[in-house]
Amino acid sequence: MSGPLEGLVVIDMTRVLAGPFCTMMLADMGAEVIKVERPSTGDDSRAFGPFVKGESAYFMSVNRGKKSVTVDLKAPEGKALLLDLVRKADVLVENFKPGVMKKLGLDYATLREVNPRLVYAASTGFGQSGPYSARPAYDLVIQAMGGVMSITGPDADHPTKVGSSVSDIFAGVFTCIGILAALNHRHRTGQGQMVDVAMLDCMVAILENAVARYAASGQSPAPIGNRHPSIAPFSTLKASDGMLAIACGNDALFQRFCDLIGQGDLPQDDRFATNRGRVDNWAALEPMLNEAMSQKPKAHWMEVFEKAAIPCGPINDIAALAADPQVIARQMLVEVVHPIAGALAVPGVPIKFSGSEAKVRGPAPVLGANNDEIFGTRLGLDETRRAELKEKGVI
Amino acid sequence: MSGPLEGLVVIDMTRVLAGPFCTMMLADMGAEVIKVERPSTGDDSRAFGPFVKGESAYFMSVNRGKKSVTVDLKAPEGKALLLDLVRKADVLVENFKPGVMKKLGLDYATLREVNPRLVYAASTGFGQSGPYSARPAYDLVIQAMGGVMSITGPDADHPTKVGSSVSDIFAGVFTCIGILAALNHRHRTGQGQMVDVAMLDCMVAILENAVARYAASGQSPAPIGNRHPSIAPFSTLKASDGMLAIACGNDALFQRFCDLIGQGDLPQDDRFATNRGRVDNWAALEPMLNEAMSQKPKAHWMEVFEKAAIPCGPINDIAALAADPQVIARQMLVEVVHPIAGALAVPGVPIKFSGSEAKVRGPAPVLGANNDEIFGTRLGLDETRRAELKEKGVI
Repeated sequence: MSGPLEGLVVIDMTRVLAGPFCTMMLADMGAEVIKVERPSTGDDSRAFGPFVKGESAYFMSVNRGKKSVTVDLKAPEGKALLLDLVRKADVLVENFKPGVMKKLGLDYATLREVNPRLVYAASTGFGQSGPYSARPAYDLVIQAMGGVMSITGPDADHPTKVGSSVSDIFAGVFTCIGILAALNHRHRTGQGQMVDVAMLDCMVAILENAVARYAASGQSPAPIGNRHPSIAPFSTLKASDGMLAIACGNDALFQRFCDLIGQGDLPQDDRFATNRGRVDNWAALEPMLNEAMSQKPKAHWMEVFEKAAIPCGPINDIAALAADPQVIARQMLVEVVHPIAGALAVPGVPIKFSGSEAKVRGPAPVLGANNDEIFGTRLGLDETRRAELKEKGVI
Repeated sequence: MSGPLEGLVVIDMTRVLAGPFCTMMLADMGAEVIKVERPSTGDDSRAFGPFVKGESAYFMSVNRGKKSVTVDLKAPEGKALLLDLVRKADVLVENFKPGVMKKLGLDYATLREVNPRLVYAASTGFGQSGPYSARPAYDLVIQAMGGVMSITGPDADHPTKVGSSVSDIFAGVFTCIGILAALNHRHRTGQGQMVDVAMLDCMVAILENAVARYAASGQSPAPIGNRHPSIAPFSTLKASDGMLAIACGNDALFQRFCDLIGQGDLPQDDRFATNRGRVDNWAALEPMLNEAMSQKPKAHWMEVFEKAAIPCGPINDIAALAADPQVIARQMLVEVVHPIAGALAVPGVPIKFSGSEAKVRGPAPVLGANNDEIFGTRLGLDETRRAELKEKGVI
């Protein structure tokens, strides 16, 4: 079965995370992704640890299933090669700082002349416009500025970064949506266009009820740990060997939960009889629930709560996640075999199609692995010419 | 200028967050989104606080720009109406628990018979397959099970939930990607298909270097607060009136940073001379940096650091974010005027197109606001028939 993006050709000029995450999704869905890298060094993230047999696990994970060619974009012959690639492509993705592509003579206005059907996507920290446009961006700085840290953590004095680089990743997925929507527009009109996605904008877009609460009240919400602002118990609680997340959305569930932990009388306490009371008196209720639950291990409670249909789940670390029957059944960690590093576990594809196939299509490429195929077969450069360009350091 | 999804008709059977976030993006990009709601009560989230003049700010935010019709799907006449809508639609999105659509006689196998071009997307907690498929899902439980909590927070004993409902939101954006990719496939083949997205799968997909580190070492990474595992200073630090995020990726930046905070000798200390040393001795270095920075307010440091090109940013709360010049320039908080609630701030669209327009197209609909338009004009039911169906509670 072919991928839903079968036949789509993507020129991938991205590095590190946001852009590569976007083109990884395109590759998983069947697009041909041609990663254009600097000769000798390639994508910066090839040098990021951890390493397996000298190969970056980070790079290998987010660049699986892509092809790699090397091009020195500052050399006139390299620029000509890139323009030739663009002529035969549907999509180009880059995540340079605004202005870099223009300096290279490869901005959208130029590339549109070469290929009016091209969808050109730029993923940046702050976007192509606005006063901060030229600033460098790091996930930490964008998470700080974008509001998510101000609502994550135990309390207002401890704003907390999300453990994965969500501002890069959200920029990657929104860029992917922009590209696919622009392709839809092209199907109708024949015209390509530019798509401009900023990490900061993406973080604003995903704040959901924090913005709604601010809009309704004028007050900025603060972090409240793992609790829910208006439902209790809806939090993490402590078993003898670790924590569980428990969600009791109504009085009947709370009674059932209390019966199961041997505290069946708690709902008769006036403070805890209603959801409103439980929210207001959580500081008194939480230690009682933790005390009762700490008598038994997680596995015991999971079994008991599941039978009683109380929504709950363990706080899985990555090893527990990798062993989880649902994660295994959905093939959400898969092995790819890299020619140098060997077998490596990478996340699977979180979109399952009934009539197409989205899957991890192969390992990440070694630098320039596809130079002969793309420059030879695709662009028609013979072996002598390719050797000459390699000699000069153009490819 | 029209949206990139102009002309696309979407039947929206979603509730609360993951599904509605997906169809919100489709509406922002110009699709006609027809939200099908239960008569009388509608989407559960219409009852979620906070409220503005009795209207849910939460509902209004994530359902802007959609149309609303009411249909009792359990009534045979209601089911017939839904099938009529499906005949004229491109996409159907639902986020019921697996099995619910089948019980209603509206599963994909049935709807495909009615409209083979239909793209049918289901967004659920655990997916259409696997041992947990039938379980109820809440964002808290999925964040716990999905690994993100195990890498977020101050240390291993305090796994921390992300403040916004990222497992719902990632499911929404990945569902959107699946729909757009399936439409691309349909352009080529004429065939629709089913798209199956699970919140848990999405959380695995976004763990990035946590999975890479686990794959390389076999060890589960633990939360490390706001620090970077292998770069220092790359963290939040304390000014006199709040915190800033600072990213000094190399020795030259660190020296410049130390000069600016009046601690120019620190890089001469053997413990802090190299990045490796700073990472290993962060427990000693952090209090010295905090002590120096706590002498002046955030605004002072931001000005000084920006001039010196040291990557940095304030930890904005929602009010600060709303006042940020970049957020304003990029129109990332916009006002919509609701017929009952009045003006309300909602997040803008984080994808900017050069040749199409993505924008917040209007307020969220009041329940059943488009019954006459859709059932009358679109499906051709005359006023008498519509009154009859309303009388019976079918619409």
